Amino acid sequence: MLTKKQYREAQKRALKYLLKARVVLSEEEKQNISVADFGLSDLERQGGQILTFFNTERLSAKVIVLFPWQILPEHWHSAIDNDIGKEEVMRVRWGEIYLYVPGEPTPNPKAKISSEERGNFTVWHEIILKPGEQYIIPPQTVHWFQAGQDGAVIDDYSSTARDLQDGFTNPRVLRATKVIDDEK
Amino acid sequence: MLTKKQYREAQKRALKYLLKARVVLSEEEKQNISVADFGLSDLERQGGQILTFFNTERLSAKVIVLFPWQILPEHWHSAIDNDIGKEEVMRVRWGEIYLYVPGEPTPNPKAKISSEERGNFTVWHEIILKPGEQYIIPPQTVHWFQAGQDGAVIDDYSSTARDLQDGFTNPRVLRATKVIDDEK
Repeated sequence: MLTKKQYREAQKRALKYLLKARVVLSEEEKQNISVADFGLSDLERQGGQILTFFNTERLSAKVIVLFPWQILPEHWHSAIDNDIGKEEVMRVRWGEIYLYVPGEPTPNPKAKISSEERGNFTVWHEIILKPGEQYIIPPQTVHWFQAGQDGAVIDDYSSTARDLQDGFTNPRVLRATKVIDDEK
Repeated sequence: MLTKKQYREAQKRALKYLLKARVVLSEEEKQNISVADFGLSDLERQGGQILTFFNTERLSAKVIVLFPWQILPEHWHSAIDNDIGKEEVMRVRWGEIYLYVPGEPTPNPKAKISSEERGNFTVWHEIILKPGEQYIIPPQTVHWFQAGQDGAVIDDYSSTARDLQDGFTNPRVLRATKVIDDEK
């Protein structure tokens, strides 16, 4: 859970990254950055700031901001009804990310994870993405990613997003972020 | 048709627009801008410069550069096999475009078309798109667009692109650009 104040501060901070990365936004979009703590109440370490450009019955595009070393927890996009699962292309616009997918575990990966959290991350094949580099994540593929020391701004192209139905390795994850009103 | 020299010059010119619009590209992508004259041999007035980021069996993303007042000719994305036709979202990153779709014709549209070419454009409902603005074009929808006086850089998100199978109103259009080697 996040307090309203934490939520707003993360929105403001994310907007600074978006502007630094020269993402062109409407005034409405600037107000609509969503902040996800995945129910872990530890936004600095695990979470994401997401601006959705659109989400139709076939296509979606978002920009994801990660703060320095922030992790987007391990998850996958399940098959739902007639959809075999979301296909996703991540393309870094600014900063650097370490993306992990199934495959031969990379020795000495760049990711930093506390030992208590280590068990919630099962795939360790590392893809390093720098500005202008992209990677296609097939449907149902387990993946997670972490920003490097400067944070990251990522263009995220996909088929229809159904975020609330994503599967997560960490059983404590709740995809819907609870916001507590601390301003009364 | 274009000469090799024309093709290369259009590539170089398009790259300048992409850099001005702060599109982040790999070195390989900088060399791979494709130039389309739609078989009309009149690139300044009708054509497009296109950089494809990826084109999978479900998704595609491109950046389209239009020079000042350049028109991308009227066309539609047909149903093919199991695909009901390409769905496309155009989002302007730099400059301005005038997009035309079916609907009530707009009085005094901003587009500039020579009288000889007028017959090759049948839809006149105008959507003006400025930086940070986007529009969703449903499958099979007839559309065309023209850049304003400064040109334009457009993020183009879509389902799978099958450009060579697009339909065009102008019967003279050939989607594959013929390049003549003038350098021997």
